[in-house]
Formats: sequence, structure tokens, C-alpha cells
Amino acid sequence: MYFASDNWAGAHRSIAERLFRESDGFAAAYGASALDRHVERRFAEVFEREVTVLFVGTGTAANSLSLASVQRPGGITFCHSEAHVIADECGAPDFFSGARLLGVPGAEGKIDPEKLRVKITAFPQTAVQHGRATAVTITQATEAGTVYTLAEIDKIAAIAQKDKLSLHMDGARFANALVSLGVSPAEMTWKRGIDMLSFGGTKNGCWCAEAIVFFNPAQANEMPFIRKRAAQLFSKSRFIAAQFEAYFENDLWLDLARHANGMSDRLRAGIIASNASRLAWPTSANEVFAVIPKRAAKTAVERGAKFYEWPVPPATPELVGPSETLIRLVTSFATDDADVDGFLDCLAS
Amino acid sequence: MYFASDNWAGAHRSIAERLFRESDGFAAAYGASALDRHVERRFAEVFEREVTVLFVGTGTAANSLSLASVQRPGGITFCHSEAHVIADECGAPDFFSGARLLGVPGAEGKIDPEKLRVKITAFPQTAVQHGRATAVTITQATEAGTVYTLAEIDKIAAIAQKDKLSLHMDGARFANALVSLGVSPAEMTWKRGIDMLSFGGTKNGCWCAEAIVFFNPAQANEMPFIRKRAAQLFSKSRFIAAQFEAYFENDLWLDLARHANGMSDRLRAGIIASNASRLAWPTSANEVFAVIPKRAAKTAVERGAKFYEWPVPPATPELVGPSETLIRLVTSFATDDADVDGFLDCLAS
Amino acid sequence: MYFASDNWAGAHRSIAERLFRESDGFAAAYGASALDRHVERRFAEVFEREVTVLFVGTGTAANSLSLASVQRPGGITFCHSEAHVIADECGAPDFFSGARLLGVPGAEGKIDPEKLRVKITAFPQTAVQHGRATAVTITQATEAGTVYTLAEIDKIAAIAQKDKLSLHMDGARFANALVSLGVSPAEMTWKRGIDMLSFGGTKNGCWCAEAIVFFNPAQANEMPFIRKRAAQLFSKSRFIAAQFEAYFENDLWLDLARHANGMSDRLRAGIIASNASRLAWPTSANEVFAVIPKRAAKTAVERGAKFYEWPVPPATPELVGPSETLIRLVTSFATDDADVDGFLDCLAS
Amino acid sequence: MYFASDNWAGAHRSIAERLFRESDGFAAAYGASALDRHVERRFAEVFEREVTVLFVGTGTAANSLSLASVQRPGGITFCHSEAHVIADECGAPDFFSGARLLGVPGAEGKIDPEKLRVKITAFPQTAVQHGRATAVTITQATEAGTVYTLAEIDKIAAIAQKDKLSLHMDGARFANALVSLGVSPAEMTWKRGIDMLSFGGTKNGCWCAEAIVFFNPAQANEMPFIRKRAAQLFSKSRFIAAQFEAYFENDLWLDLARHANGMSDRLRAGIIASNASRLAWPTSANEVFAVIPKRAAKTAVERGAKFYEWPVPPATPELVGPSETLIRLVTSFATDDADVDGFLDCLAS
Repeated sequence: MYFASDNWAGAHRSIAERLFRESDGFAAAYGASALDRHVERRFAEVFEREVTVLFVGTGTAANSLSLASVQRPGGITFCHSEAHVIADECGAPDFFSGARLLGVPGAEGKIDPEKLRVKITAFPQTAVQHGRATAVTITQATEAGTVYTLAEIDKIAAIAQKDKLSLHMDGARFANALVSLGVSPAEMTWKRGIDMLSFGGTKNGCWCAEAIVFFNPAQANEMPFIRKRAAQLFSKSRFIAAQFEAYFENDLWLDLARHANGMSDRLRAGIIASNASRLAWPTSANEVFAVIPKRAAKTAVERGAKFYEWPVPPATPELVGPSETLIRLVTSFATDDADVDGFLDCLAS
Repeated sequence: MYFASDNWAGAHRSIAERLFRESDGFAAAYGASALDRHVERRFAEVFEREVTVLFVGTGTAANSLSLASVQRPGGITFCHSEAHVIADECGAPDFFSGARLLGVPGAEGKIDPEKLRVKITAFPQTAVQHGRATAVTITQATEAGTVYTLAEIDKIAAIAQKDKLSLHMDGARFANALVSLGVSPAEMTWKRGIDMLSFGGTKNGCWCAEAIVFFNPAQANEMPFIRKRAAQLFSKSRFIAAQFEAYFENDLWLDLARHANGMSDRLRAGIIASNASRLAWPTSANEVFAVIPKRAAKTAVERGAKFYEWPVPPATPELVGPSETLIRLVTSFATDDADVDGFLDCLAS
Repeated sequence: MYFASDNWAGAHRSIAERLFRESDGFAAAYGASALDRHVERRFAEVFEREVTVLFVGTGTAANSLSLASVQRPGGITFCHSEAHVIADECGAPDFFSGARLLGVPGAEGKIDPEKLRVKITAFPQTAVQHGRATAVTITQATEAGTVYTLAEIDKIAAIAQKDKLSLHMDGARFANALVSLGVSPAEMTWKRGIDMLSFGGTKNGCWCAEAIVFFNPAQANEMPFIRKRAAQLFSKSRFIAAQFEAYFENDLWLDLARHANGMSDRLRAGIIASNASRLAWPTSANEVFAVIPKRAAKTAVERGAKFYEWPVPPATPELVGPSETLIRLVTSFATDDADVDGFLDCLAS
Repeated sequence: MYFASDNWAGAHRSIAERLFRESDGFAAAYGASALDRHVERRFAEVFEREVTVLFVGTGTAANSLSLASVQRPGGITFCHSEAHVIADECGAPDFFSGARLLGVPGAEGKIDPEKLRVKITAFPQTAVQHGRATAVTITQATEAGTVYTLAEIDKIAAIAQKDKLSLHMDGARFANALVSLGVSPAEMTWKRGIDMLSFGGTKNGCWCAEAIVFFNPAQANEMPFIRKRAAQLFSKSRFIAAQFEAYFENDLWLDLARHANGMSDRLRAGIIASNASRLAWPTSANEVFAVIPKRAAKTAVERGAKFYEWPVPPATPELVGPSETLIRLVTSFATDDADVDGFLDCLAS
């Protein structure tokens, strides 16, 4: 019953096998091998467009270097107030980009477009003392387990484009959002106006496979130097490439995300059906936020379940009663029915 | 006949298998798993001392964050003029540490102690305009394929200690140096005055396994934040830990390094015995620098050998005749006798 | 009728004369002259304590380097949401310190102590992903023209000390706050727990004279290198020292601040007495925020008055009626009765 | 007998008076005043070309921000091995630009063009591990008191242009070089291919007046944000503008430089004529390097002369005999005949 995070899982067998097979033989280092080239082309196929792809080792690196690529002195990147980039990366995006992140609030983990619009107007390109708006980043799926609809992305993109701001998507859980919406990778990204994407494989069945995808290759000109200086160019780069090859093969990545989301669906259904517990807010990817009796939480911990109690959002203190607690449950490719049902049993007891 | 670099090899089978086995199951993320703890203790055993160990993804990261941990405003780190940190890391050590690297010359890839001593005196702690000496870093084995003797390390360490400079060892090829000297890890590091070590596993049979080892845990206090902000804290940290576990098991790492060095010995012997080729300078780890006829180089390339032609050191232009070329050959755990003999055949032809 | 900012004034005659007298002769450069030493001792007398003083060229430099001196990797400095450091310095404090500024709201430009306390708890020293609380900075007088009472500073200081955070005071308008409270420099700073102070002279009658004052000299150890690397060590440092000498002579600085505050008092009284205008909120230093008829603002502009219309605080949109506007008026050592009365006439018309 | 540095002098009377006159009245802050605009136009007249001018507070700031404006990730700026930027600015240019400075040797303080050419080829735009050549900076007059001829600048510029590197001139002693060559400001800068200039006024009679001059305004687009973030935008910017106004009036700046150079000529002539002393190398601006008997140096110190003993260049250890010492003498607008003759007397004694 491991619901602490999808990164507590190991690696999917097909990916682990593919990596194992790659252990033999020799190949050019630092991303120059045939396999690296081949997998880069797979990204182009997946996204139905010429793209520039750079492998990196962590989601924090993918986000930080994406944002670094479009920053200018005094620049400001807007993100949701609780986005991973501002809340959980120890300042790495600021460190690598030399810019500042500014949180914009919004319900259910999504940037409120109107608030974004107003915030941006406070940082015109000419008011040197304030700094200047340069980029927007959205998280898909969000930290709150929700997913921006295509129309919602359009709205953010229109605001960004109006002021010529670059638009980045943190796709640490890209696949989970994608299968939740049932759209194509192209439809969820460049067709919406996304300029660059942190494409995460680690949370969805890889060991360590993250990529930065630029939909306009010209914008990636500086990236080889940015990545190398950031210590993110791996000598045996093909150990990342091999993982991605297996990830894409026969749409494995979509199957894994569908499985993870399905396990969250099962959790959601069980919680809705329960007497004493309820969903804190609706989610549609592989995260579930639930208000449960403290007693049930205690039972679950005693039975070995792993999950995090979550801070109650300051805006809605009434969400959680005095004998209750807010918890986050994350499912992954490796979660199975028994895990879910075992947890739901704890709630019922 | 892959002699371009030891990082063109894949992963040793035992390490790949260990990693494969780890793909099942769940474990705490971000370095908090039992396996992480276990492998950290293995480092303590290997070094016969309490140490603080931090896994990172690249050798550049290990070097940069090691040096970042001891830097102060205006700081200067001294390294060999051709060290990897100054020549091949795109400025990453400067970027992460906010300090400047300063090259000190020296024969055969080793810092000349007397020149180091003189350089340091030019940067007293009080002359604010020059900046101040804060650290020294040596590479073991060196970029030139040579190995500092224990006495040579002692000499450097004495100079560093006199001015209270931190002493770092870039051990991207630590194992190769170790078996070449036939000493213990402790003898080659903290017993000599090394404060922190970039311990490389990638070039010696791992996929991606680098560690920073602090011999005085108090000096590592800032490291968790430095590493996280540097985007080098891996969520599935145990995929690095698993590699190191197999690496250390039954002294596999030493066997692999002995094999790699042995292959270089075989190359060295063959070159010495050849008519038209010769060693450019003596080396004792898994790198061989040779002056060979251009014709032989052409033959080798035609037969599929991979290796780099190397720039002639400006100090010794007479090293290479007009019809000759200087080449670097690197052997690894995956090199075999047939590779070596095939290459020596090219020289003979 | 120059009320745009106190930095639109020139220099007070006594200060300008002192600087002029210093133009003759020679003296050691880079802060090593007898005059530099002498003026540093004057600071010690003014603050009744051994201090370390560093001259810099701008208030932004004073703030940024003060904060840089106490930062650690992943560090976070808390300030008021509308403080100059976060709103008006183009990210300089983040750039120089490598840390992030985090805004804490609070009425009338002052940090709400309880909100500060809660925010700090979100950044414990052990949660590497969030970053860690390292410093607090308050502005005295605030950007809103108000002044922290000694008791209010005590409250902030107690919260900072509980978590061992450094406490900085941005004293761009230090003298105005001081004479408003009628206390001594010591009482408003180190006796309250302030660790370091940006001591501003420029807004109060100097050309360009800012100083960083450390109340615990040991904490200033790194500063000479931090300042030099920040390009803030002036070769003819004594041109700053000379200004400060005149500034302190016969308590000129306090007289100038009293005059500036008095001019604001006169404005405040006139506005309170007016029919159609009113104070937006009470202020006690040399800034006045007033809600006036748009018509009156137009008249003032036509008669040559210089002042800024000010954004209505989002928290109190009802503050300003549809035919009204919010304006900021700043008085200085150079403002005179005629300026004030002329402006009040515009309101009356 | 103040020969320690030209920045030991105060301010020329005309400049001090002009600044004094400016102390009255009000004007827009942060560089927006009519005087700022007027003086910027004066720069355009002086350089016979539309230019973008930014005032900053120190020469280190002028150099660092100039270089920051053209840097890219992994960038490398080439300078003379003993240039101020690499030897005397505590790493500020690296800190502000995020690039690395690389020293190129050359006789008499001037970059050896052939060595520059070779060094640049080691950093092609495609070799990500080495970093990439982005800029060249020359010092005019040099740290060694010499002056690049127009033909010598042409040679450097041709090398820089071939690889599309930006070319910067550190003109801390610009006026001294200019009058030494007897050419126009345009001829010594943009007509030679200089892209940006650190234009120093401080060493030549101002209190604190430095400017960055861009000869192609489009290249200065980022500068307002770079300068503000660097804490170099002065609120009372017109205190710098006023100094420059007086500096240019009736070619005062050229007169002051001619005087300073003339004083050095007098020193040079006296030393050449002396029995026991000699010039260490020929210089043509306001610096003189001389080899004098240790005894004479002692006499000079006893008589109150201020000057620095200078390190013997490692390349020419035979320059200075066992009973001799190498000294640097710098003359300024404030040096007079009596100072020079008094010093020459010491040598004669």
C-alpha cells in the first residue's frame, strides 16, 4: 500500500529489461550515439513535429534548464503559488535561470488566468525597478491532481503570447494528464502554444529519464551549453535513451499512465462510496486528496500504508473537521487492486 | 577496438543485474531508502572511516558541488592547467561554486608543487582585489594517464594545509589509480589529507553512479541544500545506490579497474615493442598516450578502431614528428585482449 | 512643489561644501584613508557600540550585500510583500545573495508578525525541497510612510531569534523613522536585535552615501570580498566618507530628517483640514498618502507639482472613490513651506 | 610625492565646483533628468556617433557589466594575463557575466595577437565541454603603462571579428591613452572595431564618474536591467552626469590627461638621465615602471613619497639586480613639477 508518491516505485519490467540489454557493447558518449539519435526521432514522432530534445537527470533539472533558456536579466517567471518549481525545488529554477519565480494563486492547483493577466501588467518591459515578465510555467497534471483542459491551456497561452512571454509546461506527470484528457501529445502542447516541455518518465515507470522538449528548435540554441554547465550532460547518455525507447514502444507509457490513473479512479470511487471519508476536491490524474477520519489514518499506518498527510489549504480551513485529516494518495504503474482495496478497507474499519 | 574513452562502454553485467533486480518493489524516494543507508555504510567500510556520502549523476556534478561546498566570496581553487574541471566541464565548477579555477602547470598532468606554492602566495586572504585562495583540487588518476604517488599527494596536501585550503580529489578514475598504486582507499585519501572526493563509478562499469565523499562529516553540512538546489537529488536515488552495492561486492570495482589497467599494460607493452610507434610519456592507469605513424592511425580507423588524436602539448612540440600523430587510448572493464591485439596489429602493418 | 521622491533633491549645502573641501590633496584609495577610518569611528559613536561599517553606492547595494552576507544555499529571506527589496530592486537581493525573497503581508507596510511566524515554520532547516529560512528584513521607515514602534520591532526580532534567523533593517529612511520615534540609533537597532543595517544618507541630503552597518563585527568577516566582487568598493572612497562626516556633524542628519518630517506634518494637517481630500492611511515619517479629487490632481500637475499617483492596495479597493485618486507625496530636507502650501492650494481649488 | 595611484588624488576644482553648483534644486531621479540626457548627448558628440551611455559607480562595474552584456552560457572572455579584470577585480567580471576570463600573455601588458588567435581556436562554438569564445577585452592604456597603437587594436579587432567575438575596451585610463596617441575618441574605439567601452573619469579628475559606452545601441538593449540588478543605478544619477559635464567642458579631460602624461614624461626623462636608475620598460601614458636602487627607494619612502614596489615579471627575472627594486609610479592631474623633482632627487641621492 505505497501511496506516498509515484516515485517510490521502481522501474517497469520492460524498461528495466531494455536497459539491461543495453549494458553490452560500446557507443559514443555524451549523447552522440545512434541510440540517442534514434530516441530523439521517436520524440519527433510522438509529438508529430520536429523537436529538439535534451535528456537530463531530474525533473528539477528539466524545469530549471527550460526556464533558464528563456530568461533575461531581471526576468520573472509566473507559476502557480503551489507549483513544484516554486515550492519543492529548493530555489533551483531561480539558481539556474537567474530569474525570479512569482506565484499566482488559483483554485485546484491551476493558475487563475485573470490573476495571471493582472500580475503580468505589474511588470512591464520598461519598469526597470520591478523586473520584467519573461515566462509562464504551468504544471500538467497539477500538484493538486487536477488537469488543465485544452481550453484552459489556451487561455493561459493567449495571455502569455499577448506579452510575448515564453510558455513552459512542467510535465512530470505528463502521461497521466494526457490519458486523462484523451488527447494527443501535440494537442496538449505545441498546438496550444507551449514552447518547451519538461517531459517526465521517472514517475511513470523509468528509473531516471527526463527530457526537455523544445517545439521550436531555434529556441534551443543555447541549451547544449546550458546543460553542460549545469552538470546534466550524462556520459553514458544512452542509459536514458534506452529507457525512453522502451517507454514509447507499443505505447507502453500510455498504458502505464492509464493504469496509474485507473488505480486512482478505484480509490476515488471507494472513497466516494465510503461513509466517513470524502474527496477533498475532484482530481482526474493519479493523485487523490481525501479527508478521512484521523482514526482511519492511524489504522492505515498501522497496516503499513505509506502516504502523506497534507497541509490544509489556507483558503479553505473548513475543509477538514477536528477529528479528520487531509491526506494525499498517489498511484503508479506499480500499484495494484489489492493495494487500493487494502487501503479502502482501512477507511471502512 | 573502442579506445575513445572508458565511458563508451556500457555497464558491467553484475551491476546491470543488480539494478535490474531493484526494479521491483517500492522504497522511500530522495535518498531515504534502506538501500541508500546501506550503501552509505559500505562507503564507510571501504574508506575505514565515518564519511558523509552524497550520490550525484555526473562527474562534473561531483566536482562542482564538492568545490561549491568550501567556497567563499572571491574564492580561488587551484587545479592542474589541463584538469578536467578547468578544461572539460564548460565552467560548471565556477558556475556552481561562484569561485574561479586557476590552472597550475606541471609535468605529466600533475600539479607542480613549487608552482602551486608560489601561485597561492599571490592570493593572500587580505588582498581583496586579487581574490583569495580557498581550495586545491587534484585529479587521480590524472588526465594524462599518470598517478600521483602517496608522497606526491603528501606534498600537495602540506602546501594546502599550510594556508588552510581545502583539498579535493577528482576521482573519476579513482579505482584505476588505486590498483595502480596498490594501496587502500584510506591511504590514498584522508590519510593523505584529502578533505573531499569525487568518487566515480561510471567510467569503471556503472551506468551512472557518482558520489561525493566527505571525510569530515561536519564539512558536509550545507551539502543537502547545495545538491538539491543543483538539481542533483534523484527521486529514485536507489538506482544509484544499487549500482554502488554491486560495484563494491566482492571487490568487483577493484577487479574491473585491474582489468582495465591490465589492458593498458598490454597496449603499452605492445607499443614499446613496436618498431614505428612509441609511448608519448609513461602512464600507469588505464590511459595510454602514444606517438604513432599517421599511416598506422589511418589503418586503425579503417579497421574500425575508435580513439582520439590528441593535441601535442605546447611545451613539447618536438614530441611528434611530421609523419606522426599523438593519440590517446583508453581501456575499460569491457576491453578484451582481442581489442588490444587488433589495435597493435594496425601499428605493425 | 517636488513631492515625487526625496531622491529628487540635490545635496544639502553643508554636505556639498564638505565634499568640495575634500577635492584637494591626496589620500589612500579603496577605503584606506584616515578620513575613512575617522568616519567609521563616528558610526561607532552614533550607534554607541563597536560596529563594522562598509560604504557602498546605492541603497540596493546596501540591502543586497547585507542579505548576501548571511545567506546559505537554498536560503530564504522574509520581507514585507511591498518592501523595496522585493518590489523595486529588479531582483538584485536575490542576484547577490543567491537566496530567494518571500513576501509576508501586513497592514500599513509592516510585516504581520503572526503571518511571519507561520511562514517561517513552512521552511524548516531540514526540508531540503522547500529551502530554508535564513533571514528577515524590515524597512524603517516603511514604504507606506509608517514607522515600526520599538515594541513592533521587538516582536519581529523575537520571531527571528527563535529560529536563529538574521535580522536586517533597510534604513533608506532611517533618520526619518528615528526622529519620528524620538529614540536613539542604538535603541532602534541593535538594542532591538537588529544584526545589520542599510544606513541611507542619500535620501536625506547626501549625493551618494550609503553604508552597511554590522553590529556584530564577526558577522562581517566575508564583507570585504563580497563588496569588492560586487563592484561596490570605490577607489575614492573618501568622497562617501566626507559626506557622512558632514551628515553627522552637529546632528545635521537629524535636523534634516526633522525638517522633512515636519513638511509632511504640514501636508498631513492641511489634507486633514481640507474638504475634499483625506489621508489614505496615517503616516508618521516623510511620506504622505492621500486620496484627492482627480480634479485637484489635475490642477496640481498643471501648476507644476511633481508627485506619483499610487496603485490602490488590492486589499482595500473601496479606499478610493470613482472621481478620486490615490497619490504619494514625499518631502525632503529641501522641501519648504511654500511648496507645501502651494500644493494644499491645489487641493482647495 | 603621491605616486601610488592616480586614484589617490581628489577631484579637479572645475569638476568639484560643477558638482557643488548642482546641489541646489530638484530633478528626476534614476537617470531621467534633463542633465542626464544632456550629458549623454555630449558623449555622442565626443565620439562622433550615436551611442548608448550608462553611468555606473566604479571601473569594476563598468568592466563587469560591459562583459555581462555580451555573455552566453559557457562563455569565455579573453584578456591580457595581467589585465585589471582578471587580476584586480576579485572575480567581479566572472560573477556578473557568468562567464570565465582567460588570460593571454603578451609583452608590455598587451595581448599577443597570435597567442590570442591560437587560444580562441581551442574554444570552438561547438565543443560544449570546453566552453566557447565570446568576447575579447583590451586595456587602454594598459596596466603596464603602455598604449596599444591603432594598428595593434586593428589586429586584435580582426581576430575578434573573424570569430564574431565582441570587443571591449577597458578605458580606466582612456584619456591618457588618447592624448598619448594624439587621435580622436572615435579613431581609438568604434573606428577600430571596439563594441563597448568602459570610459573612466575617476582616475582623471572626477570623484566618481564611470560610464559604459555602447557604439551599437542595439547591443545595449539588456543593459538597463543588467545595471539595475547590479545595484549600479544611482538615484541621484545627476551627480555623475554633472561631473562628466565639467569633464568634457573645453576639453578639460584632455588637458588633465596631458598634464598627467607630461608629469610621467618628466619622470621618465629624469630616470633616463639618472645614474643608478633606469626604466624597466618604455611606457607612454601616466605610469612609469623603474628599476631603482633599494637604497633610493628607502630614501624616497623616508621623504614621504608614496608608490608601490612591483612584482618582477616572471618572464624577465634578470630585469632587477640584487640591490635593486622594481617600482611603479603613477602621475595624475594633481601631480606637479615639485612632486616629480622631489622624487628624482631621491634617486640622485
